[in-house]
Amino acid sequence: VCAFIECRGVAARHMLSRDKVLTIDTMNPTVKNVEYAVRGPIVQRAMQVEKELREGVKKPFTEVIKANIGDAHAMGQKPITFFRQVLALCSYPELLNENMFPEDAKNRARRILQACGGSSVGAYSASQGIDCVRQDVARYIERRDGGVPCDPDNVYLTTGASDGIVTMLKLLVCGEGASRTGVMISIPQYPLYSAALAELGAVQVNYYLNEEKCWSMDLSELERSLAEARKHCNPKALCIINPGNPTGQVQSRQCIEDVIRFAAKERLFLMADEVYQDNVYAEGCQFHSFKKVLFELGPEYSDNVELASFHSTSKCYMGECGFRGGYMEVINMDPEVQAQLSKLVSVRLCPPVPGQVLMDLVVNSPQPGEPSYTTFMKERTATLSLLAEKAKLTEQILNTVPGITCNPVQGAMYSFPNIISLSLPPQALGQAPDMFYCMKLLEETGICLVPGSGFGQKDGTYHFRMTILPPTDKLKILLAKVKEFHQKFTQQYS
Amino acid sequence: VCAFIECRGVAARHMLSRDKVLTIDTMNPTVKNVEYAVRGPIVQRAMQVEKELREGVKKPFTEVIKANIGDAHAMGQKPITFFRQVLALCSYPELLNENMFPEDAKNRARRILQACGGSSVGAYSASQGIDCVRQDVARYIERRDGGVPCDPDNVYLTTGASDGIVTMLKLLVCGEGASRTGVMISIPQYPLYSAALAELGAVQVNYYLNEEKCWSMDLSELERSLAEARKHCNPKALCIINPGNPTGQVQSRQCIEDVIRFAAKERLFLMADEVYQDNVYAEGCQFHSFKKVLFELGPEYSDNVELASFHSTSKCYMGECGFRGGYMEVINMDPEVQAQLSKLVSVRLCPPVPGQVLMDLVVNSPQPGEPSYTTFMKERTATLSLLAEKAKLTEQILNTVPGITCNPVQGAMYSFPNIISLSLPPQALGQAPDMFYCMKLLEETGICLVPGSGFGQKDGTYHFRMTILPPTDKLKILLAKVKEFHQKFTQQYS
Ligand SMILES: Cc1ncc(COP(=O)(O)O)c(C=O)c1O
Ligand SMILES: Cc1ncc(COP(=O)(O)O)c(C=O)c1O
Repeated sequence: VCAFIECRGVAARHMLSRDKVLTIDTMNPTVKNVEYAVRGPIVQRAMQVEKELREGVKKPFTEVIKANIGDAHAMGQKPITFFRQVLALCSYPELLNENMFPEDAKNRARRILQACGGSSVGAYSASQGIDCVRQDVARYIERRDGGVPCDPDNVYLTTGASDGIVTMLKLLVCGEGASRTGVMISIPQYPLYSAALAELGAVQVNYYLNEEKCWSMDLSELERSLAEARKHCNPKALCIINPGNPTGQVQSRQCIEDVIRFAAKERLFLMADEVYQDNVYAEGCQFHSFKKVLFELGPEYSDNVELASFHSTSKCYMGECGFRGGYMEVINMDPEVQAQLSKLVSVRLCPPVPGQVLMDLVVNSPQPGEPSYTTFMKERTATLSLLAEKAKLTEQILNTVPGITCNPVQGAMYSFPNIISLSLPPQALGQAPDMFYCMKLLEETGICLVPGSGFGQKDGTYHFRMTILPPTDKLKILLAKVKEFHQKFTQQYS
Repeated sequence: VCAFIECRGVAARHMLSRDKVLTIDTMNPTVKNVEYAVRGPIVQRAMQVEKELREGVKKPFTEVIKANIGDAHAMGQKPITFFRQVLALCSYPELLNENMFPEDAKNRARRILQACGGSSVGAYSASQGIDCVRQDVARYIERRDGGVPCDPDNVYLTTGASDGIVTMLKLLVCGEGASRTGVMISIPQYPLYSAALAELGAVQVNYYLNEEKCWSMDLSELERSLAEARKHCNPKALCIINPGNPTGQVQSRQCIEDVIRFAAKERLFLMADEVYQDNVYAEGCQFHSFKKVLFELGPEYSDNVELASFHSTSKCYMGECGFRGGYMEVINMDPEVQAQLSKLVSVRLCPPVPGQVLMDLVVNSPQPGEPSYTTFMKERTATLSLLAEKAKLTEQILNTVPGITCNPVQGAMYSFPNIISLSLPPQALGQAPDMFYCMKLLEETGICLVPGSGFGQKDGTYHFRMTILPPTDKLKILLAKVKEFHQKFTQQYS
């Protein structure tokens, strides 16, 4: 398309554009407001650079190292054998007759196939998800939360957590002007939230995480943010990502309790993004689900506070992003609203069935005594230990760089270091300073990170986000190059 | 949830509801306007009836026969062996070392894996879809359309066709009051369209298909509809489903040409839903893609008319609904708008990779000389022949029923017969007459159809939609029961 246009020049292009029905001026304006940094300009440039390298263009580096997106398999993480065996069996049930697969894998596959229309993963499932998968999810949640009950009717399987989050926001949003729905999100945030809110025309209400206290949530900051927002919109929901993306923190039980009390008092719908629930590395840190804490606070809270929580097959030890599996659990949702939710999800027919299968395997993994148990545990532990190691490595090396400070990566898959000493010219270029920094880093070293401005940050502070996912040897190279680059950059612009 | 509520009674329920943040009164009003009949009240009741049967409740029938949704595998259609072999290989690449799979299946799997991050279908793909899959789609379109060029950059892989259609509508919609975007859709329609338009707050502009002329499109009706719409909104797009759902027609080349000229003259963006492109049964009928006809009309049209067309893995001979595969091709889209489209799809990260794999296999199926070719062709032909037979059977039997008239099922998977003689009491019950009819049919015979009112129909006419998918023996039972029921119903209410 672009080549075609370019050869006619800009004037012709504008002429052509005037003739179109759908132009930048006539299209949906809320879509124009959407931004999504994780796949933004830096990443597009990185792909070009890779292409240039393949075409033999000389660069000061020989490969692009991508640490821009939490895509574990793309970075070399291996899938869990058991999961893939069951997926193969479900895809091609003739394999059930082969004796190359362990019995527990076959049993899982048979059970799932039986729950599918015509015993085929090629049939649409119920829109809310396959019944027995939702039941397995409910039992998983009950185990995880020490017996707090979970009703499978409150579980919705989704197309990745992204789908659940957007669907839930869609239900919440209404109003115009000063009564427009506001949704509180952390800054820094995972940009799906800002993108979805922009698209839905809702008001993004920022609350800042406390970088000094390891990206924890401050009650006083929540109060400030809410009071401010109430002047110009109707804040209805509060979103939390725990463990955090892009900031890698794990919220304490106390903090979660405070947030729940705050939500109850201020009448806010809670959305808990818990896709990194198994990614906790730091000593003394532990994952506490919002649901569990909610129930521990007693019926005053557990009977009243509305909560939606989200999980995914994309993260944790699975890293199965391509399958787009996930679930959402809703608690204390008004039954009429829940009926609307069930109707809404039926329009898209159903989440991808292979993703549902994977979600089932995650919540119903091999048990002690089953033939696949040992291998499963070995693979799971190896992946999580390696991530813990890389989390530590990243924090340690970055903190040796003068001008960079970096909180511990307590969980999730990211570090969000502060590049303190960015006092530089690039405003002149009409770019965010950290965008300038990351673009220069890419051009000079081949390392692809995402500027902090893509996630939001306190005015006047600059960060980048990097994943801890590259294989250890590449991660070391990456960190060494960042160190060298940062020192040169600081010299050049000070 | 409901049990919990019920035991407290209606009064308590209202009290509770008042306390919620998110209630039917505070939720997004556009979501409330959404309707989706294919999974609506009839289908929910059918699921209850099935449960009652399992629990031993006595009924005048022993099983529910579902003909409410185009879900081929659920109705016993078998998947294409080659497709499932490649999917199994991609899911569990260790199988590449086994000699139980044909070489062409292995080659396809290797090629796809190579195109995946970390050689895993568990990695996120590019948001637009895997590069080599988009290239294969482009080549498929070129072959299908007799050499009309297709640029892979204009191909977007999607999460089923549903996703592409909703995304495209989302781009188009804007404005308030009299300048709100209007989108022309056929009546009867596939209710995804009305649902998406309701959710987006766009104006649904109805044009009626001509039932007397086998559900063809009339230019005069398009003109009437557009003129009417222009009085109160800004019609920007025209949607066509060909072959048709729920009406089973295949539009003639002439008709498509007329529609394109109309769209060009009236400056409408065309959306061609071609998910049934291989489902053409009637003699003398042929599938013509909108794109091909557009290009045959010459550069005056092919350089200007904006077109998005949609395909899916869910229909045709594949029927792989659960995988949620699909693609959309955009033609003559303004480059700035297309950049916005590319950004928009990146927010959801990527379509499910197994669905992309399936889409690839559909557009790049076994070729003459390859080991799987013969079996593939045999399976494909058998499925399509059986569908053609059932299309004929359905039309023939229904037309023997006094009071039912039924157009030939030229294509797709549906019949939409007219139940002429519905002159009956049920308005008294506050129900659409055909909803009353279908509900009674379900209760008395166990047959699950969807009332015409779920798709739209001319005022005062009544229809139901049934799929032709049940296995032939069940389809015969179904048709015989409908016949008997209709006769009894007519006697009772005349
Ligand atoms: C915090 C958070 N939520 C949600 C998602 C969406 O993940 P998916 O849609 O793949 O489940 C991500 C992905 O990176 C994430 O980091
Ligand atoms: C006309 C039409 N378009 C689109 C779809 C959506 O199909 P999918 O999202 O499964 O590709 C359907 C499904 O029945 C359909 O009939």
